[in-house]
Amino acid sequence: MSQLPLGFRASGLPRKDRPRPSRHGLAFFYSEQPATAAASFTINEVKCVHIPIDQEQLKSGRAQVIMVNSGCANCCTGERGVREAKKTIAWCADTLGLDPKQVLIASTGVIGDFMPMDLLAEEIPMLSKKLRTDDGLLYSSFHKAAEAIMTTDTTVKIAHISVTIGGKEVRLWGCCKGAGMIHPAMTLSGKPGTLKGKHATMLGFLLTDAAIALTDLKSMLQQATEATFNRVTVDGDMSTNDSVFILANGASGATVKSAADRATFSDALQSLCTDLAKKIAKDGEGASKFLEINVEGARTEAEAQKIAMTVATSPLVKTAAYGEDSNWGRILAAMGRSGVRIHPEQVDISFGPLCVFRRGAPTNVSAEKAREPLRAKEVALNIKLRSGKAKGWYWTCDFTGGYVDINARYRT
Amino acid sequence: MSQLPLGFRASGLPRKDRPRPSRHGLAFFYSEQPATAAASFTINEVKCVHIPIDQEQLKSGRAQVIMVNSGCANCCTGERGVREAKKTIAWCADTLGLDPKQVLIASTGVIGDFMPMDLLAEEIPMLSKKLRTDDGLLYSSFHKAAEAIMTTDTTVKIAHISVTIGGKEVRLWGCCKGAGMIHPAMTLSGKPGTLKGKHATMLGFLLTDAAIALTDLKSMLQQATEATFNRVTVDGDMSTNDSVFILANGASGATVKSAADRATFSDALQSLCTDLAKKIAKDGEGASKFLEINVEGARTEAEAQKIAMTVATSPLVKTAAYGEDSNWGRILAAMGRSGVRIHPEQVDISFGPLCVFRRGAPTNVSAEKAREPLRAKEVALNIKLRSGKAKGWYWTCDFTGGYVDINARYRT
Repeated sequence: MSQLPLGFRASGLPRKDRPRPSRHGLAFFYSEQPATAAASFTINEVKCVHIPIDQEQLKSGRAQVIMVNSGCANCCTGERGVREAKKTIAWCADTLGLDPKQVLIASTGVIGDFMPMDLLAEEIPMLSKKLRTDDGLLYSSFHKAAEAIMTTDTTVKIAHISVTIGGKEVRLWGCCKGAGMIHPAMTLSGKPGTLKGKHATMLGFLLTDAAIALTDLKSMLQQATEATFNRVTVDGDMSTNDSVFILANGASGATVKSAADRATFSDALQSLCTDLAKKIAKDGEGASKFLEINVEGARTEAEAQKIAMTVATSPLVKTAAYGEDSNWGRILAAMGRSGVRIHPEQVDISFGPLCVFRRGAPTNVSAEKAREPLRAKEVALNIKLRSGKAKGWYWTCDFTGGYVDINARYRT
Repeated sequence: MSQLPLGFRASGLPRKDRPRPSRHGLAFFYSEQPATAAASFTINEVKCVHIPIDQEQLKSGRAQVIMVNSGCANCCTGERGVREAKKTIAWCADTLGLDPKQVLIASTGVIGDFMPMDLLAEEIPMLSKKLRTDDGLLYSSFHKAAEAIMTTDTTVKIAHISVTIGGKEVRLWGCCKGAGMIHPAMTLSGKPGTLKGKHATMLGFLLTDAAIALTDLKSMLQQATEATFNRVTVDGDMSTNDSVFILANGASGATVKSAADRATFSDALQSLCTDLAKKIAKDGEGASKFLEINVEGARTEAEAQKIAMTVATSPLVKTAAYGEDSNWGRILAAMGRSGVRIHPEQVDISFGPLCVFRRGAPTNVSAEKAREPLRAKEVALNIKLRSGKAKGWYWTCDFTGGYVDINARYRT
């Protein structure tokens, strides 16, 4: 049973496989027939060139190919950046014999750099052609594409899930990239969602062979993005390029329509995105640990989320996690600056199941014992507020010297 | 001409000078006569024990001594923390023969730790007594006190200035501490000021021999705090203990009363606080460079400040500064997530006087040439928005592996 959704093809040239040394990668995700298409983009006020172009292309709600270049953000590149992006779209459409309106683009890399047009002029036709050969159907091609979108990522990030809709198997496959400048807050509407983040380049590409109406696809993508990708932070620095795309081509022959089918598909999509989002936090630049910040007992979901985010972005909490230091006071200090009204005398803090602070005072757990849960590769920092019934969470990683090295020494 | 304000005394026991190894320091700032007193405290929702106690003491607007313990924050310590703080006040008042209401307290250190009461029982009387001997008058005693308040600070932070009021010389002397958990947002009113920060323990102690009315002293301290200490960040992590105190004892015989005198004194106070605030940013944990973020052409001062703060707290901007990498795209990405409406096509970015991005596109300055200004120990990152006339600024430092080391390995 293939993990790959029917009717899709992919090709990719990871930077390490290039014929000449380069920091650029190039990837294509292609549907054999026009697919229903939606995307969620960063709320950063400074946006890369590809976002307004895609927003225009997506007005039809249909697309057939997504072209991704890694290594150059094509952001803050003025008119030249826009001209060059449009030229790459034309090259791709020409080779594939598509209307240019069927081509979506994405990019990630250094802001302010111009596109490597000489390289792209050669490689866009080359890789586009592969999409029409048997190569483009192989699992290894999807893997190469997922590899080609990587920048400072150390692992390929792929997930897949299948569900049954109307008696037929429907496949969802996705890949993403992102390790630094990670704090996505994306929305489909152009306006921030209800759960505002503040700050990555993360790129996500979701492919399904279900047929689904555009409005349903959009609302499910919005919901999945808010519950998953928008709850990941590595460094609190939101990117200008964050984008998650979904293509639904209907090649399975199943249509998602009834309320029950919509719920099934939506759950599957959220599960796929959860898997991908956690992979980003786990591969955060320099990370040695995955941290899950859970908040319960907040007055509202937005407040729970604000607290979880503030703790997840606190350099002091994240360096303490790296040092496996049970310095829970740093969690409380971060909670206190979240902008949410806190009653410390009602608050509990636990490391996994171990409560270290209860109703405003330290418990009698020794600092040495409190370190135990912090020695794991995956740590849950649990906060109970006793102010209400709402919950929130954020996924992040610890903060190490590796992050500083990567970002001081290399351009990303 | 002495730098020290008349009628004040100080004593201090820095941690390195303790008779036995300890991470605790103890300092006293004392006025020979009751002084007009005001203080500005953190807006963090989680506050240390000393803040509500001081707020109560300050209702009279008069105080005579400030006792500072470093190494223990006495925060999140419940009822026991409050009992212990009151006991230390009683010990101090007893030794000096003062009403306990004349004693203010401050603390900085590990959150959740209890006070080292055995040590304090011995040392509070010992150091309090020194305030009544000639020792307490010496410049070296003030220096010792400034040293005793240090935690991860690597340098003593002292500033002084004199002005003439009504033909008489008036002295202002101050010291402060702070290197990590630095992003103060302090206010006298209990409500956030107009320039909201988000996030240190910084402690500041300002002494002047001018006489000045309490309401004037309060408004001048508020103004100086907002323009200086509240514009410093090291790590974006606001402390539970941030406090700046001022004592004005009138021993110079000069009274600040006329509008002209108030302006003179207020300028001097702001200049003193600027000097101290910059010293904190320069001594940020692990810092190798001082960074000044200047924003001009904003619609409002609050918007200018929001942008300056977001850039000043961006891990990517700060690691690039450490790496002396002219990666100005990270500045734009941070600006774009500040929550302020930005028009990138109107924006300029300069490193010192060197413009690297003008009206939405890169200038023709090479990456190599753009690095030059970043090689200095003090770097100005200048942002021009062309949206209005308001200005803002923030002081910070670069972000190095030293910060991670200090905060992963040691409890602060």
